Amino acid sequence: MTRILGIDPGLTKTGWGVIDVAGNRLAYVASGLIKTTLALTIPERLKQIDEGLQEVIAQFKPETSAVEETFVNKNPLAALKLGQARGVALVVPARLGLSVGEYPANLIKKSIVGAGHAAKEQMGMMIRVLLPACGDIGEDEADALAVAITHAHHAQAKKVYGT
Amino acid sequence: MTRILGIDPGLTKTGWGVIDVAGNRLAYVASGLIKTTLALTIPERLKQIDEGLQEVIAQFKPETSAVEETFVNKNPLAALKLGQARGVALVVPARLGLSVGEYPANLIKKSIVGAGHAAKEQMGMMIRVLLPACGDIGEDEADALAVAITHAHHAQAKKVYGT
Repeated sequence: MTRILGIDPGLTKTGWGVIDVAGNRLAYVASGLIKTTLALTIPERLKQIDEGLQEVIAQFKPETSAVEETFVNKNPLAALKLGQARGVALVVPARLGLSVGEYPANLIKKSIVGAGHAAKEQMGMMIRVLLPACGDIGEDEADALAVAITHAHHAQAKKVYGT
Repeated sequence: MTRILGIDPGLTKTGWGVIDVAGNRLAYVASGLIKTTLALTIPERLKQIDEGLQEVIAQFKPETSAVEETFVNKNPLAALKLGQARGVALVVPARLGLSVGEYPANLIKKSIVGAGHAAKEQMGMMIRVLLPACGDIGEDEADALAVAITHAHHAQAKKVYGT
């Protein structure tokens, strides 16, 4: 069995989801949202994401992690801001000794619903089918669980980790 | 006296510089370059920046820090990548309890050479005039020291810290 942490990074809210994988069997462990305080400075908000992810890793002890490749906006300033949150989402698991996979949004959609251009609603529905124990979760948690499932499929294919 | 860490973030190389400030007097303490290994994954390279900055802070114990506002490229993908390195440069001092100032490149140039559009060579020359003990340093270290000096001027003006 392997425990995987999926992360959907964002400065305002970072979704996370933890699943257990054994062969073809997936099980929901936990998921949540790290919200940052708008009134704080950017470094302080990045620190909230850092601390939030540290807590998740300390509590659920995943063995590997995966982060969605952020959509590259046409606005370079928006891309820079998103990049900052993403840098933190990538460095926290790496710092704590976890491998970190990166998957583009289209590959994640393909892994979950079988098509690269699925609607948000379709994604959420499939996550609830694949992980019925997740309950009524929001979009960012669903996206984080989706990247964790994608990592499970691809890491198994590449034999990146043993099960 | 206040000790300031300046950081010029980049995925390939991150410049850093430490200065002491007492009233109008500036003194060079140390500076260097954190280079990342091209062959590693992005999360592993971000981890090298994280560890490098942690070591600098542990060794020189600055009380406050400042980071140059990265030039926003017209290419959103380049901005995203730069943003990731910048996110790490902002979060490491914040995580270790330091305040983190952010200054745009034009303000830094104005603080150092008196004009917002100074050439790279002029900047390096002025850093060597202001901090003669720095010796023959490269461009990234000079930029890191420049943002530290800018922080000294502006933080004193704003009374962000006591001297």
